[in-house]
Amino acid sequence: MNIEKLAQGVSEGDRRALAQAITLVESSRSDHCIKAAALLEALRPLGRQALRIGLSGTPGVGKSTFIEAFGCMLTASGQRVAVLAVDPSSTLSGGSILGDKTRMDLLARDPNAFIRPSPSRTHLGGVARRTREAVALCEAAGFDIVLIETVGVGQSETVVAHISDLFVLLLAPAGGDELQGVKRGIMEIADLVLVNKADGDLVSAATRTCADYAGALRLLRKRQQDPDGFPKAMLVSALTQAGLPTAWEDMTALTQWRRSAGHFNSRRAAQARYWFEEEVRQGLLANLLPGPVQAAMAKAAGAVERADITPDAAARDILATVLGQRFPHI
Amino acid sequence: MNIEKLAQGVSEGDRRALAQAITLVESSRSDHCIKAAALLEALRPLGRQALRIGLSGTPGVGKSTFIEAFGCMLTASGQRVAVLAVDPSSTLSGGSILGDKTRMDLLARDPNAFIRPSPSRTHLGGVARRTREAVALCEAAGFDIVLIETVGVGQSETVVAHISDLFVLLLAPAGGDELQGVKRGIMEIADLVLVNKADGDLVSAATRTCADYAGALRLLRKRQQDPDGFPKAMLVSALTQAGLPTAWEDMTALTQWRRSAGHFNSRRAAQARYWFEEEVRQGLLANLLPGPVQAAMAKAAGAVERADITPDAAARDILATVLGQRFPHI
Repeated sequence: MNIEKLAQGVSEGDRRALAQAITLVESSRSDHCIKAAALLEALRPLGRQALRIGLSGTPGVGKSTFIEAFGCMLTASGQRVAVLAVDPSSTLSGGSILGDKTRMDLLARDPNAFIRPSPSRTHLGGVARRTREAVALCEAAGFDIVLIETVGVGQSETVVAHISDLFVLLLAPAGGDELQGVKRGIMEIADLVLVNKADGDLVSAATRTCADYAGALRLLRKRQQDPDGFPKAMLVSALTQAGLPTAWEDMTALTQWRRSAGHFNSRRAAQARYWFEEEVRQGLLANLLPGPVQAAMAKAAGAVERADITPDAAARDILATVLGQRFPHI
Repeated sequence: MNIEKLAQGVSEGDRRALAQAITLVESSRSDHCIKAAALLEALRPLGRQALRIGLSGTPGVGKSTFIEAFGCMLTASGQRVAVLAVDPSSTLSGGSILGDKTRMDLLARDPNAFIRPSPSRTHLGGVARRTREAVALCEAAGFDIVLIETVGVGQSETVVAHISDLFVLLLAPAGGDELQGVKRGIMEIADLVLVNKADGDLVSAATRTCADYAGALRLLRKRQQDPDGFPKAMLVSALTQAGLPTAWEDMTALTQWRRSAGHFNSRRAAQARYWFEEEVRQGLLANLLPGPVQAAMAKAAGAVERADITPDAAARDILATVLGQRFPHI
């Protein structure tokens, strides 16, 4: 594989080259990892940026229909749109989200759109790195908007929030007890809450749901990086496309505000630092706590859970084992 | 200092011994650390447990008045109550919370209560360990309830949530724009939201605030460890003591439910495991990323923030430096 040629293809927006490049960064083969690093380094000086939009929604909220309608609206206005999925559960559930491209038939065939299903990986750390690298490749390929889709499983929203410029939570209308549906932590990171299916018989239920979430959002402290009125809850219908232009206007206005105030760039810088430090931490721990130490860790954790030893005393034992001779001071 | 004698004093509930023991675990002198570990190990076999209640509230919500009224209600019913403060900001603000015991005059003089201000420490990790050890000492001293107070700063609520059996958020009545007061993340961990100052002119504002938070809590997914109706928002008045008995009944009912369902013990076990793993992680990183590596880390982080290098490439460089010869596989 010729990395220079591949970089050239990606930078020209060639979709096959982009697909091949993403496959390369998804590979865990060590020779592929070296090539992937070289590819990313070759593309970095282009300095291209897309607007990265994280999108979360549980199954049943109409996420595919929303992405199709929203994506087609954006491409129709001349924007190039890439859609990536983050789904650490895909190996468990047996199928990846976005795997069924037929649910996004129009967008999948749109020459200004690029859709990439979630790879089959179990390790969330791997998913995070692969997604960051895939986003970087889509940006280098000249896409204006990268939609990063995630399903409400485990820590994947946190990962997506640390990659995205904007975070959108998609909900369906609900009533009464069904309301208890939002995973803890998600409302905290949402910039926009979109209540989908505000059409036909569901309009009044959607309106109530929207008002409930608008109220809940008002109870949270305003973030420094938000102008007045954000985070915001609003009604949309992927089916009739009602509300989609307004939602996009709000995303644009929020982005513009953050750019002017310097928050856009400072958030990107903070995210880059976060991932750097996270990779160092994870890399150190993965290398220092293997084999025998891992077994000792598991045994100690069991004793700690049974209160046979305090967490701190157990930690001191492990640290003495790992750091031993080399690091006298614990 | 005789550790056996000190352990004896603590186990007999002697308040001076307890105060001396907490001073010992707060010390960073290495000989004190060894003695503190021996003391905690000597007391561990007692296996005494208190109900650990985390309490968060920003200045102005009437936290001291609440703790005084709530604590006195508990001691009047025969319970022994310890109050600890977690305030990583105390060195910055120049004074610790709870430093002014005169605001809890009755409780401070109550023979069945023990109040301990936050120590002057900047490092959150140190605060967390000190608080865990102080809680363990209060339990060994036979207290029935340990109130762990925190102010809404930084990550201190997360620390307290990982130490507590119950988490209580104290709020003041507010209207309109003032509502945007709850720090993100706190509502997610609260078991009870108490709207204080539901007395006199503020009753109707408090009632509205309470309804708002009750509505917001209903939007969150129910936790496995919660019975129906929890998390709950309710009105209290530390001034008139209205609602305090009901709040205590709810805390007792929730605790009883969790004990019956096995969640109480499994949560404690998970917390112990969390702190064990956290201490190992922090201990490794503190020992492996010192001096020259720390300078290289800071330099690399700057380059990453300016997008001169990708986070992953920078992390690979650091890992190669740190793990070098010893760990060939990165």
